[in-house]
Amino acid sequence: MWKLGAIAGVIGSGVVAVGALAVAQAAAGDPVVATQAEASPIYGVTIPEGYRRWQLVAPAVEAAPLDELRAVLGNATAVAAYEVGTLPFPDGTVLVKLAWKRKQSPEFEAATVPGAATTVQVMVKDARKYASTGGWGFGRFIGGEPVDEAQHDTCWACHEGLVKDHDYVFTRYAP
Amino acid sequence: MWKLGAIAGVIGSGVVAVGALAVAQAAAGDPVVATQAEASPIYGVTIPEGYRRWQLVAPAVEAAPLDELRAVLGNATAVAAYEVGTLPFPDGTVLVKLAWKRKQSPEFEAATVPGAATTVQVMVKDARKYASTGGWGFGRFIGGEPVDEAQHDTCWACHEGLVKDHDYVFTRYAP
Repeated sequence: MWKLGAIAGVIGSGVVAVGALAVAQAAAGDPVVATQAEASPIYGVTIPEGYRRWQLVAPAVEAAPLDELRAVLGNATAVAAYEVGTLPFPDGTVLVKLAWKRKQSPEFEAATVPGAATTVQVMVKDARKYASTGGWGFGRFIGGEPVDEAQHDTCWACHEGLVKDHDYVFTRYAP
Repeated sequence: MWKLGAIAGVIGSGVVAVGALAVAQAAAGDPVVATQAEASPIYGVTIPEGYRRWQLVAPAVEAAPLDELRAVLGNATAVAAYEVGTLPFPDGTVLVKLAWKRKQSPEFEAATVPGAATTVQVMVKDARKYASTGGWGFGRFIGGEPVDEAQHDTCWACHEGLVKDHDYVFTRYAP
């Protein structure tokens, strides 16, 4: 399933491996590939190992009714592309959006802060594997488990319809 | 892994604002505390080199009239302390809060996203040097330049009054 170039791109970025059919990489420091059961339907995207340490791309707020704080983190390939404005994003780009319920800070009246974690959403760039969806694979996870196929069916339509001019990625880099 | 182009992009974009006199002290990736033009009054805290690559601690929102999105990033010492719940934070802890005006996403109605960058605020832990302010030195910067002494006079009173039980740090780690 994975072409050599795509695998090399992912490994070369020092970050993540995705796809239910991907073979675990043996090299020290490389990510652990999740089992097929944890991969998203349609796309086979998993939550990348170590993503919480990735660099911040930008925070955001999702209004009510979700009323969430968000933060998009990117792997090294993603950040390098953002820094120089590379579009489309290269193969191996991975973006992870963390989301939390937004709650009142108990200590500072003017602030709202992260409450309970809600979803983790992943975008993986592989132009060949995901050719029919702009080169992007999507994964949406709650409590570490992928949501159902019906929810994943909605990812591409929204990204295609609203952010085609930014390689289907909403988030811009916050300086 | 940072490619040369990405590093050049960061420097070229002025994202990392570091005084020329501070460069020599940046080798360890740890904060620069110096007495120089770019250092904060009272505390002598500067913007640490490379902070934009540090790990996200948590995002936040500051309500109107500021109406800002915030993100606190921490150096390795800070993150290690957060991960195991170490209090007080050890010497060498540095936290940097980035702030941006919050603006409507032009592409997604429910989202607000970072607009213009406003302030960068830094906390540096050095229990001996800053013994009279809970071990913390403060720096507040606009456009890379520290604000005046009167503004820095307000830092400690607020942190001391509101978050003494969390070693004077508001931000909690967002999982």
